[in-house]
This record gives sequence, structure tokens and C-alpha cells, in this order.
Amino acid sequence: MKAEIIAVGTELLLGQIVNTNAQYLSQQLAQIGIDLYYQTVVGDNPERLLAAFEIAAKRADLIICTGGIGPTQDDLTKDILAQFTDDILVDHQPSLDKLHQVFHQRNMPMVESNLRQASMLKRSDALFNEAGLAVGIALEHNSCYFILLPGPPREMQTMFDRHAKPWITKRQKNSDALYSKVLKFSGIGESQLEHKLSNLISEQQEVTMAPYAKAGEVALRLSVKAQSEQKASDRLASSIDAVKKKVGQFIFAEEDIPLEQAVVHLLREQQLTLTVAESCSGGLLSELMTSIPGSSEVFRGGVITYTNDMKMKLLGVPAHLLEEATSPGAVSKQTAEAMATGALELTDSTYAISITGVAGPDRSEHKEVGLVYIALARRGDKTMVHRFQFNGTRELIRVRAAKQALHLLVKQLIHT
Amino acid sequence: MKAEIIAVGTELLLGQIVNTNAQYLSQQLAQIGIDLYYQTVVGDNPERLLAAFEIAAKRADLIICTGGIGPTQDDLTKDILAQFTDDILVDHQPSLDKLHQVFHQRNMPMVESNLRQASMLKRSDALFNEAGLAVGIALEHNSCYFILLPGPPREMQTMFDRHAKPWITKRQKNSDALYSKVLKFSGIGESQLEHKLSNLISEQQEVTMAPYAKAGEVALRLSVKAQSEQKASDRLASSIDAVKKKVGQFIFAEEDIPLEQAVVHLLREQQLTLTVAESCSGGLLSELMTSIPGSSEVFRGGVITYTNDMKMKLLGVPAHLLEEATSPGAVSKQTAEAMATGALELTDSTYAISITGVAGPDRSEHKEVGLVYIALARRGDKTMVHRFQFNGTRELIRVRAAKQALHLLVKQLIHT
Repeated sequence: MKAEIIAVGTELLLGQIVNTNAQYLSQQLAQIGIDLYYQTVVGDNPERLLAAFEIAAKRADLIICTGGIGPTQDDLTKDILAQFTDDILVDHQPSLDKLHQVFHQRNMPMVESNLRQASMLKRSDALFNEAGLAVGIALEHNSCYFILLPGPPREMQTMFDRHAKPWITKRQKNSDALYSKVLKFSGIGESQLEHKLSNLISEQQEVTMAPYAKAGEVALRLSVKAQSEQKASDRLASSIDAVKKKVGQFIFAEEDIPLEQAVVHLLREQQLTLTVAESCSGGLLSELMTSIPGSSEVFRGGVITYTNDMKMKLLGVPAHLLEEATSPGAVSKQTAEAMATGALELTDSTYAISITGVAGPDRSEHKEVGLVYIALARRGDKTMVHRFQFNGTRELIRVRAAKQALHLLVKQLIHT
Repeated sequence: MKAEIIAVGTELLLGQIVNTNAQYLSQQLAQIGIDLYYQTVVGDNPERLLAAFEIAAKRADLIICTGGIGPTQDDLTKDILAQFTDDILVDHQPSLDKLHQVFHQRNMPMVESNLRQASMLKRSDALFNEAGLAVGIALEHNSCYFILLPGPPREMQTMFDRHAKPWITKRQKNSDALYSKVLKFSGIGESQLEHKLSNLISEQQEVTMAPYAKAGEVALRLSVKAQSEQKASDRLASSIDAVKKKVGQFIFAEEDIPLEQAVVHLLREQQLTLTVAESCSGGLLSELMTSIPGSSEVFRGGVITYTNDMKMKLLGVPAHLLEEATSPGAVSKQTAEAMATGALELTDSTYAISITGVAGPDRSEHKEVGLVYIALARRGDKTMVHRFQFNGTRELIRVRAAKQALHLLVKQLIHT
């Protein structure tokens, strides 16, 4: 079955809201093994909505519409579907009864346009709306299935789960559903990962592998169609093994979690703790760590030393590193190292990470924008300092620096 | 000009990501007075992408594509556009130079597929990618304009704002463009603002007013269609005056900038400085401040005291506030005050802000999730402590606390 989602609403075309309904339905269709080929958004305009139906009916067997079935003048989806399928609108009695009852309870007068919400196509099945007032529609017309759902996400989701999904699955011919597993990588780029896996990706028949990038992280989604979860996980397991043989050293999680969550989990598991000292990342590393619930067990805190004074006073960075004409400066290997060892002194934590660099947009100390030093200190061990040259905007450089710091730590936590 | 947005990417059809790019571009097109009739999403599939181009070219004069111009095998948008417009791909030399430079700096081998990112159509204009590696495309073909942008939102937005928007507006024929002005508010909710302005909103004929909320801030967009910027600004001015009469005390900026940017600007203007002490916000307030270029002139730094030990050691919070059974505890008016005055001692800054609270998901010290104390200290003045009870997720509580802290400071900076 090939599906298309049509979202109806001028507010989407004006960018007033984002089309989360399409995302929800896309996930749901993938889970029940239906291929989705297109999503379309069209405004509350009769001609253009009719044209969207015409195009969709040529290229899909299942058309799911969201929006445009409410009480107002610009709610046109049912009327246009009636026109397209040469049908007429009739009342759906249970929905009409509910309407009367709700307005009676609210002690509000019902205007005639409200009645529109209880109408369905004569040849259609009704999809009852437990979470709202507008009844939905399911219809077969010229071997194409049409589903009309309300626009408000909560109503749409409830109606889809309880009524539309069972209606659709009853009409599905093959029963294979799509199962997925996500591996997360750090320290490797999206294209580099794809390159290293290119043979695997092209060899695989059943399991599809798709890498996608976020700043400082890459996810690899492995998907397979199967009749049961057990069969799917058997097929996925051998693909995952093959991936691990090639790029296992870059994997930080076998589920779709951010790097900071993996770090918090590993620190908790190993009963270790962290303190940070940030300069150019300005609190972002701390913010990432503390965004994870339960981080207070492993994260001691940190200092944001945005001035040389703060670096000396709070972290004991020697003045001669910062203040003399010939000194290495605030953005240097030596200062990064001194910041990390200074941060270790602040608390009893196992690890300390420091970040110092030039986030831009202007150079500082005559150093290039994007130059960043990251030091990782472990109590009783030698401090390791790494030099990076990042690209991008100020925001991206900061994100990449913070994620790179987490990557250095996660490598330590996994491999030692 | 009639526009259509085509987002390319199987990850959208699988519901792995939501199409925020379409929302951003829809808003941008509305602002420059271009009617958007359709949004389409299509997967990384050559036949279906070609079909999407064919349909769009029949019903739109401007087609903006996002996604599918990266380095991997499934990045097909440029190839398919070349096929559709009977053109060939050529190298864009500045983008190629940047690619070589970036890989050289990263000391990473460049695989051949990376070079794809630097290719453009022979007859096209290149849209340079400041925030990434894939060059964009602008092309006129059979009186239809095509714009190809990258998928990652930051890259897409930067490229659209700097290069695509000017390219498009140069080609707009009708002279009635939409002009907008944004007022930014803090310390007032969206519905409260709308309520206070309801008469104004319904009275206005020419100027439309639309409030929209972000966490901790509200924007009010006033828009008018006019033949020239001068005519637009005359019409907008009287509406702005009317708004100011009703809710002027909540306005922190007359342009669309975040609260932290207003704070940095005001501090710079008044030559004042800030230090922060964060507990539950975990670095978010520092991160917001330092996200603004030039913040290093006014932001001294901060401490993230995630443990009681850190609060005592770095900020001199008295042990009796934290450690005894009957003590007020880490989340209390007294601790917030001690943190702020302690932060003032760390540097020579004019102001210090402290935040301590319960971000959740679990209660702490038997206190409710969402309870937050924020203290604002000014050197030589009395420290003011404010108590808040925020709602929402851990993430929202942290954002609201940080934005509320900025609101308290911006009020001081504007009104004193």
C-alpha cells in the first residue's frame, strides 16, 4: 500500500504552526509497514484542495487528510471530498447527539455551522471523535482509501489510533511491519561513516541503513520489514555486528540518545564524577550535562571563566600564561591544561574537562576563529590536551566544542 | 509570485524529524509578500523527486527545495534538477576550495562523495554556505525560479537569509510587499498580551497584529502591505504607539532579538558588567549570555554550583543555610541571596544574578518541582530575591528560570 498525507490549513502555509501531524502519522505508517511516498500541505482553498486530491489519487492507494473538518467557513475538506468522489454529505447521528449534549452541558447556544462537524459522506464509514466534536471519515473510492482526520493533534492521534489504524490494517494485504534500531556515533562525520560502511550498505538487501547527522553526533538507523519483532531483531542483529566490526570504536550508544545522556549514564554506572571549566563554550557543556535528569549524581558543577582574571582566581591558571606579551595566551594548550587541573582542585570529582577557544565572530589574541583546546584531566593521571579547528558560526563552533569534549570523555568511559 | 516548498528526505517520510524548515520558509515568504500554495515532502527517490518537480513547475513560479544536497549517495536533489532542466553539474570553485581547506584543517581524508557538495548547475547561480559545506543553487528555468537549500536548519536559514532571499526579492514584480515590525515582550504571557490588546487587534484594518510565544518571551508582529517602506513605517508607527500606551512597560526591544541580546546591548551601552551563579539552570543563563557576540565585554563569567559543597566553597554560602535539618536549604530565599552576593565577590562586576530551584523531574528537599528563587544583586545596593513557581518539563522550567532572570535584569537596565 502506497500512502500520501495531505494536511489542510492556511496556518501551515503561513508558518504559524509546524506540521507535527505529518510526523506522527509518518511514524505510525512506518510501524504498520505502509510506504509513505509524499506529504502535501495545502491551504483552505477549494480549487487547490481538489487539485491535491486529484494528484494524490493518481499516485497513492491510501490518502490520509488532517484538518479542515471543523465548524468554520474555511473547513472544506469533507465538501471537497464529496465533490471529488461524487457523493453527498449526511448526518452521523451519534456525533450529532454528542454535539447537542455538549452544547447543552456548556449551556451555550449552538450555531448552525457547528452541525457541519457531525456530517459524513453517504458512502463513508464514520470515525468517532472521542477527544473532540468533528467526526472523521473513512472511505473507499475507485480502489483508493481516504481517511479524514481532525487538525488538533490530540484529537487526530486519538482518532487515528482507535479508529483509523484498525480500519486501515484490516485492508492491508501484506502484514510485514517496519522495525528499526538506532546506533549513535561520535568522533566521525556522516560522510566518513557512510564511506566506511558503503559496502555493507550496498550489500544489504533486507536491512536498510541510513546515517543522519546532528551537530557533533551521527545516528545510523537500521530498518527491516518483518512479520514479527523477533524475526526483525534476528535480522538486525547480524547487520549490527557487521557495523560494529567496521566502526565499533565510534559507537557511544545502541539507542537514540544524545551524547550527554550516554556520558551521564556511564558516569553513574561507574560511580564517577565530573567538574568542568568553560571559556568559549560559555556554559554550554554544563547546560548539556545538566539537561539530563539524574545528572546531579555525577555532575559537580563548573566555572565559566570568561575573563583572564576569573581563570587565575578560580582555576589558578598562572598569570605568566596569560599576561605577558610572549605568553601562550588564554587560547592555548598550556591554559587548557591549567584550567582542567585547576577545575579538579575545586571539587573531589574524578574527571575535569576544560574548553578554551575562539568562538568568533572576531579573532582573539590574533588566533583564528574556530581554534579550540580541550583538556581532559583524571585525578592522579596525566592531563590530555587536544587541539581542534572547527568551522561554522559562533553557535556551531560552541556546540561542536562541547560535543567534542563529551566525545573525549565517552571514549575514556567506554574503553578504559 | 506563487511559491511551493519541496522538502526532500526519507527521514521526513519516516517521521524521524519534523519539517521545521517548511515552517521557517513559510514565515519568511509571508514576510516578503509571496503567496505559498503548497508544501510537498518527498523521499530520496529519483523518480518521485522528478515527479514532484514536474507537478510543482506547473503550479508555481518559485520552487524552494530543502535537503538532498549533502555528500551521501541518497543526496539527489541537484542531479534531479539537472535532469529536469536539461543542465549539467559543474564545480563551484569557492565551495571546492572551502572543502579542501576544511578537510585539511580537520586532518581528515576527503572521500570523493564529499566533492558532490561543491557542485552547482552550469546555468545556476551559487548560494554560498557559510554555515556548512554544501553549496546552494538558484536558477531560472522556463520562467520558474528554483532555489536549492541544505537540509540542516541552521545552514538552510543562514543561506536563505543571506543569499536566497535577496536573490528572490530582486525578481519580485508586484510592488505591494508585506512590511513587518516586531516588538518583544517579557514578563507577560501570550494570552494576557492578546487580551490586553484585543480592542486594538479587532479595530485595526490595515495593520495586522499577531502575538506569538517563545519560552519566556512573547513577540508581537505588526504587519502591513504597502508600496514602499516609508508608507509602511508611517502606518505601523501609529499602531506601535497605541500598543505602547497599553503594554509599553513589558517591551524590551523594538526588533526581533532574544532577551539575552537586549541585556548584552543594554549592559554595553551603560558600561555595566554581570557575573552569574547557577544551580538548577545548570549553565543555561551563562550559555544564553555568551551566545551573543560581544558578550565578553560585559559578561565576566559564572559558576555552576550543582552541589552544596560548591555553593559553600565558591560562593561562600554559609553552611548553616544548607547543612542542618532545620536550615532553609539549597532551594531557598536565603541561599539565593547568599549565592548572588557571593558571586559579586568573585569579580568586579556591577551585577550578579543567582538561580536556585527544583528543575525536576523529581522533587528535592521535599520542595515542589518548578519552585525557583532568583536573586539580583547590584554592587552597593540591596539584593532582591524573587520566588517563582514554574510549570512544564525539566527543560521548560530551566528555560523559564533563565529567561525570568534576564527579565529581572532588563527591567532594571531599562527603568533605572
